[in-house]
Amino acid sequence: MTSALLPEPGSSTRTRVRRIPENAVTERAALEHVLDAGLVAHVAVVDDDGQPYVLPVAFARRGDQVLFHGSTGSRLFRGLAEGQPTCLTVTLLDGLVLALSAFESSMNYRSAMVLGVAQRLSGDDELDALRCITEHLLPGRWADCRQPIPKERAATMTLALDLDECSVKIRSGGPDDGPEDLADPGLRHLWSGTVPIHESFGTPVRSDACLAETLVPDYVTDWRR
Amino acid sequence: MTSALLPEPGSSTRTRVRRIPENAVTERAALEHVLDAGLVAHVAVVDDDGQPYVLPVAFARRGDQVLFHGSTGSRLFRGLAEGQPTCLTVTLLDGLVLALSAFESSMNYRSAMVLGVAQRLSGDDELDALRCITEHLLPGRWADCRQPIPKERAATMTLALDLDECSVKIRSGGPDDGPEDLADPGLRHLWSGTVPIHESFGTPVRSDACLAETLVPDYVTDWRR
Repeated sequence: MTSALLPEPGSSTRTRVRRIPENAVTERAALEHVLDAGLVAHVAVVDDDGQPYVLPVAFARRGDQVLFHGSTGSRLFRGLAEGQPTCLTVTLLDGLVLALSAFESSMNYRSAMVLGVAQRLSGDDELDALRCITEHLLPGRWADCRQPIPKERAATMTLALDLDECSVKIRSGGPDDGPEDLADPGLRHLWSGTVPIHESFGTPVRSDACLAETLVPDYVTDWRR
Repeated sequence: MTSALLPEPGSSTRTRVRRIPENAVTERAALEHVLDAGLVAHVAVVDDDGQPYVLPVAFARRGDQVLFHGSTGSRLFRGLAEGQPTCLTVTLLDGLVLALSAFESSMNYRSAMVLGVAQRLSGDDELDALRCITEHLLPGRWADCRQPIPKERAATMTLALDLDECSVKIRSGGPDDGPEDLADPGLRHLWSGTVPIHESFGTPVRSDACLAETLVPDYVTDWRR
């Protein structure tokens, strides 16, 4: 089942999904769900020569913003802080879709795309953003680790992108085989369907520095996506 | 354990990883390993206004090229075919890294980045590329599905990016806690370590169109990443 394209206030023509519109779900709830479920985002940075780079980053959603961070020493991140337009995409793979034809074979996925110009955060707002990014990866960890000191804060650039211009695409369900393929007796012997893809957390591995008597915290053991 | 930066013929200054160089492994074998293990790539396209987009795509490596495809009706893909510079990134998440400090907390990951100008493929070369993309997702499927007909070929744009300018970053192992944190008695009670992340295939789900007596093929059942 794929979802219909729905109008959303604030979305612009350039984020209207132009291909496969039946996979576009611009509902805000779907967008937030994808952003909240992803562990990594891919962010575009374009250098002065027009060469784009796609960088994997840790991130978090905080209300109407998506937050991510990098090093203040990064030339590419400095470009973003100076106002270069960017795009942040989060993609979750849910399965392989094996249609009768190669052409209709696909993947089930959920993908959110946010366009805009990032703002660099500072002060308590930045500290809260760093908390959000840590908590996004593992809720409960922020209160259970040493928080950033000034030297670390100075080395970190934290950026926020407003969720004003964004889109979300979701493909789910089985293959969309066309009527000709479904009626073709030469294809009736083929297996078709989906193969689910699951992402899971494994057994935590203690670091060498950690005391043997320190138990794995409940927020680690219980956190399953 | 993180790997050292190694020189590689053909890598240029703009793909030399500028931050955290101890995570950079420019060995060709590592690059190929990451490209071969990933299921989805994120590709950058910059429009005429300088706005980048990051699109998730199916892909495959074929020798010294990485291949991906899109719709001939896509404005963004047409831009790539016309010679706009692009970047294709594949990221595999391997775990959460929980350090004593928020600052040193991280993720274990493997990420490959390829820069360049894509070439549009045609004829038998394009057909072979489509075979590679299908086989990358599920080896054995190409021979067991209907291959593209001219109408489908006309709707598909297949692009190739040479692996001339690329980089790979790998982070693995436990947290890199600094000596001050390790010596701090106030942090000795904290649990630190890694939480592995696994991606796996679930039980195949037959489509409604598939005959009940058709067995799931071995290449589906046996394929585990």
